Amino acid sequence: MADPAAKETINIDMEPVGRHVRIEAGSTLLAAAQKAGVELIAICGGSGTCSSCLVRLVSGELSPPTLVETGALNREEIEAGYRLACQAVPLSNTRIYIPPDSFTTPQRLQIEGLEAEVALDPIIETVDLKIDPPSLNDLRADTTRVNDTLVERGLEPAEIPLELLTRLSESLRAGDWFVRLALRRGEIIACLERENSPLGLALDIGTTSLAAYLVDLAVGRTLARSGTMNPQIAYGEDVISRIHFAGSKDGRQKLQTTLIDAVNGLSHGLCEEANVSRERIVEVVAVGNTAMHHLFAGLPVKQLGMAPYVPAVSDPLDLRACEIGIDLAPGACIYLPSNIAGFVGADHVAVLLANDIGKSSGRVVALDIGTNTEITLASDGRLLSCSCASGPAFEGAHIHDGMRAAPGAIERIRIDGERIHLQTIKNQPPVGICGSGILDAVSEMLDAGILNNNGSLEKNSPLVRTNQDNQAEFVLVPSSISAHGRDIIITRKDINEIQVAKAAIRAGIEILLKEAGIGFSELDEFIVAGAFGTYLDIKSTIRTGMFPPLPVSRFRQVGNAAGMGAKQMLVSAGKRRDAVEIAGKVDYIELTIHPDYMDIFLKAMYF
Amino acid sequence: MADPAAKETINIDMEPVGRHVRIEAGSTLLAAAQKAGVELIAICGGSGTCSSCLVRLVSGELSPPTLVETGALNREEIEAGYRLACQAVPLSNTRIYIPPDSFTTPQRLQIEGLEAEVALDPIIETVDLKIDPPSLNDLRADTTRVNDTLVERGLEPAEIPLELLTRLSESLRAGDWFVRLALRRGEIIACLERENSPLGLALDIGTTSLAAYLVDLAVGRTLARSGTMNPQIAYGEDVISRIHFAGSKDGRQKLQTTLIDAVNGLSHGLCEEANVSRERIVEVVAVGNTAMHHLFAGLPVKQLGMAPYVPAVSDPLDLRACEIGIDLAPGACIYLPSNIAGFVGADHVAVLLANDIGKSSGRVVALDIGTNTEITLASDGRLLSCSCASGPAFEGAHIHDGMRAAPGAIERIRIDGERIHLQTIKNQPPVGICGSGILDAVSEMLDAGILNNNGSLEKNSPLVRTNQDNQAEFVLVPSSISAHGRDIIITRKDINEIQVAKAAIRAGIEILLKEAGIGFSELDEFIVAGAFGTYLDIKSTIRTGMFPPLPVSRFRQVGNAAGMGAKQMLVSAGKRRDAVEIAGKVDYIELTIHPDYMDIFLKAMYF
Repeated sequence: MADPAAKETINIDMEPVGRHVRIEAGSTLLAAAQKAGVELIAICGGSGTCSSCLVRLVSGELSPPTLVETGALNREEIEAGYRLACQAVPLSNTRIYIPPDSFTTPQRLQIEGLEAEVALDPIIETVDLKIDPPSLNDLRADTTRVNDTLVERGLEPAEIPLELLTRLSESLRAGDWFVRLALRRGEIIACLERENSPLGLALDIGTTSLAAYLVDLAVGRTLARSGTMNPQIAYGEDVISRIHFAGSKDGRQKLQTTLIDAVNGLSHGLCEEANVSRERIVEVVAVGNTAMHHLFAGLPVKQLGMAPYVPAVSDPLDLRACEIGIDLAPGACIYLPSNIAGFVGADHVAVLLANDIGKSSGRVVALDIGTNTEITLASDGRLLSCSCASGPAFEGAHIHDGMRAAPGAIERIRIDGERIHLQTIKNQPPVGICGSGILDAVSEMLDAGILNNNGSLEKNSPLVRTNQDNQAEFVLVPSSISAHGRDIIITRKDINEIQVAKAAIRAGIEILLKEAGIGFSELDEFIVAGAFGTYLDIKSTIRTGMFPPLPVSRFRQVGNAAGMGAKQMLVSAGKRRDAVEIAGKVDYIELTIHPDYMDIFLKAMYF
Repeated sequence: MADPAAKETINIDMEPVGRHVRIEAGSTLLAAAQKAGVELIAICGGSGTCSSCLVRLVSGELSPPTLVETGALNREEIEAGYRLACQAVPLSNTRIYIPPDSFTTPQRLQIEGLEAEVALDPIIETVDLKIDPPSLNDLRADTTRVNDTLVERGLEPAEIPLELLTRLSESLRAGDWFVRLALRRGEIIACLERENSPLGLALDIGTTSLAAYLVDLAVGRTLARSGTMNPQIAYGEDVISRIHFAGSKDGRQKLQTTLIDAVNGLSHGLCEEANVSRERIVEVVAVGNTAMHHLFAGLPVKQLGMAPYVPAVSDPLDLRACEIGIDLAPGACIYLPSNIAGFVGADHVAVLLANDIGKSSGRVVALDIGTNTEITLASDGRLLSCSCASGPAFEGAHIHDGMRAAPGAIERIRIDGERIHLQTIKNQPPVGICGSGILDAVSEMLDAGILNNNGSLEKNSPLVRTNQDNQAEFVLVPSSISAHGRDIIITRKDINEIQVAKAAIRAGIEILLKEAGIGFSELDEFIVAGAFGTYLDIKSTIRTGMFPPLPVSRFRQVGNAAGMGAKQMLVSAGKRRDAVEIAGKVDYIELTIHPDYMDIFLKAMYF
């Protein structure tokens, strides 16, 4: 263990890609990225003239900024921790954050989902008004004038929020007293130019990634979609570490601001793409797990991080966009649907909504795999939900050569005797293994007899070798083929991480089935939502025992169903009511106090 | 006119005291203040060691900061225009603003009024709740838990604004789930410690001065009161010049911020005085003229500055205090009562409310004299209101030796033959003349035959002299007696300013009486509200013709009735309804388009 050579190496964590690499002291961050197979833009070849390999120090110590850096970056940037990767040399174990623009190829994000046609049932009504201008014989205030005109049209007078009041007088005059008003729940929330329809934004705020959809509310059409990493990753990979960070000085504020900035960036990009003004966006629906929901709205998360893990708020929440710093129409509102529990959030409600769970009569399981996996079983009119701490293994963390689903990640594996067939994202030379790849690997290793039912590697297999600590490891990619010239291996510890993750999920499913008093074979449908779920090989999930052995035809991989549910709630008041009903109907099962959980979990550890 | 010596003098305007002085080039600002009789603190005698004579440059050019100043002031202060008066030498005509702490004696502010007992009819209800804490068998969200407990107590579930949501979880746990909630219109707006009653703040936002009252809402008792100058004065003395300034870049924002800062300062001081936490203040009622109302709330004022002068909003407005940067309880609300018209604001509604105008059956005039004078006539169940542009003469502006009601201002004058008796504020040596003094002077000069009915000075009077431009002027105080060693005089132009002001007010009264079809002798009561009105000598107002010749016993000087009305609306929902009713009942008469106005106005110019 006490290897004297280890003193001269330094560990580098790279976010948001989730790559960990050990480098020799004295190497630059750019060299570290190259060694890890993370493709930073470095047009100038590392001479410091292109300033494109911008990174941000999250923790650890770097060499002082060079003259090249003080020339290329301003004081604010340097104070905020920005550096050029080709210049900065780590002096200690270091974590850096790589902004999206510094990558040559973007990380794969799941923003598509199976879109169901939803009848418009608008939250926002528009009304076109021709208003009498003021004169010395008609001295009514501007707002009185607007409301009187609404009443003349047979409508109710409306409240006007302060944000719009500060601009309404100007808008009325700019439009020569002929305007289109956007009405919402008895309020006038925007004064649009009369040829413009109101727009909406659906947001899926994941722990790892964000997805956004720009929708024309008049017709329900999606104008543009976009995704990005959740930049909070710089402050912690999973929900628990972010809750912990939120407890530090200004931590909650930092997490909120960084997220809000990213959402503003997304909406800005979407509007540019669709060539529309951001001031036309009048309504947002945002879904996320309960912690993301709370951090987005600025709510406290401390109580989410300690037993009994209760949310501050579980009912739907209506916010003014400007209250939390989201730049849209001045009076724009944000609707946050119900949460179910501390670890079953509005994103899961959106998944259930988008898949009509609870409306159909069948027996259905729906789950969304992540660091936490939320599972719901619909059976005989009941909805049972739970949350499993499945850990970050499927996102590539805690796996020796794990990584997120970025270019070069191995996502499919077939073992054919001693030959190993790989498929990588974007067909790049292999860098590491992402979640679907590691599950494939385990499944194939079981079939090939490399792995036994306990999760032990068969040391007799020609593909298994013994390392210096006398531990068995499986060589998936030899150094001659990998992008970085090192072996890509799967260790006993990696297998154990997968065992824990898949056992947690399986145990969650089993507990729900047990509570409902049905067997898995009675399930009509098994819905797998979310980015990771989309790329899974169902046969591997069954072979590893993560999912029950149903016929493959009963499985349905639905992509970003949470985003689709958010879009439905953006255009339909009825869908919002349905979501409230779904959330209210759910019986939440707390697994950690369920008497059978530990037995089932331990049994599910075997393959 | 082209006096070569004049090149070597410089004009200095001093705000908020409204003193104008001409100094020799090369003099310091401290010397200018001393010459003008404005008492700046200068403990060190002007050597620059005490740093107490802090002033702020508003416009004009000063000598560069001296080493003394760069040592005493930080960079931000110097960039914001702060200087030491003993160091800075004006290089051009200059306007400076003197912060309250730099005066030896404060300006006189009217914060008292005749207080009527008002029955409590609370806007804020409190309820003490003992809430079941969460457990693994009771996972309800914090807000659900609170609302369930309200329902158990037979109350309606309540909305919770975001500002409180961000803190509620912590407050509930800090109070060990036993808390006092403040409820307002179906919302929980504060979570108080269980021994604390909710507090309220009544604000009277005048163009010149601010008055604030801290009230215990549980008992309706005033805990503390305070006043200060409206610091917006630095950007313009009257409403019109501020509306103009609001149109400049960031002008509206600057005017709002400067006012909000002053209100925060007032509430901070009141809470210190009463030894209570600002977070206990849950409700504010703020009244002011329509422009102050709009600038306080951040509403546009451009349309107030051009015909037909309509408000953006005239209905009552409920704001969240934090929306406009007022620091109180997180969910605290601000109630802004109705405005009547662009130049008859909520402060006048508050005056009418505090004096039961519109409820009693008598014929009553109520007016509040300022740069604009708002007048209401109640007669036979009708309420008629108008606004007169009476100008700033009564606030000491545009008068040769005019000043605001600060120490040394002449406020009472009796002329007895050739002897002149003076009374100054705080019995200080005379510096200039404030509004009540100038009106007294005119009245006495008429009686003494120094002034004729046209407003011309009698050149034969021994007290009248002819200046170098061959203009007659009345020497009120010879240089031997005045604080600054210069004569205090009243010019023909000063008399004209007073003629215009008093004629505007009288014409307004006459038009209202004419519209109601009654004569002035039929008036039962004549109510004079506001700071200036309190210090007026009623006999002088009648002698000059500003007010009609009623018996003095029918006049009632009620002090800051606007503030009293605001306090009533703070503790009584019924009074708020009354105020809405009053504002709705008023027929507003626009004088500028009234066919008889000009005739009556011109006739009223005579004494």
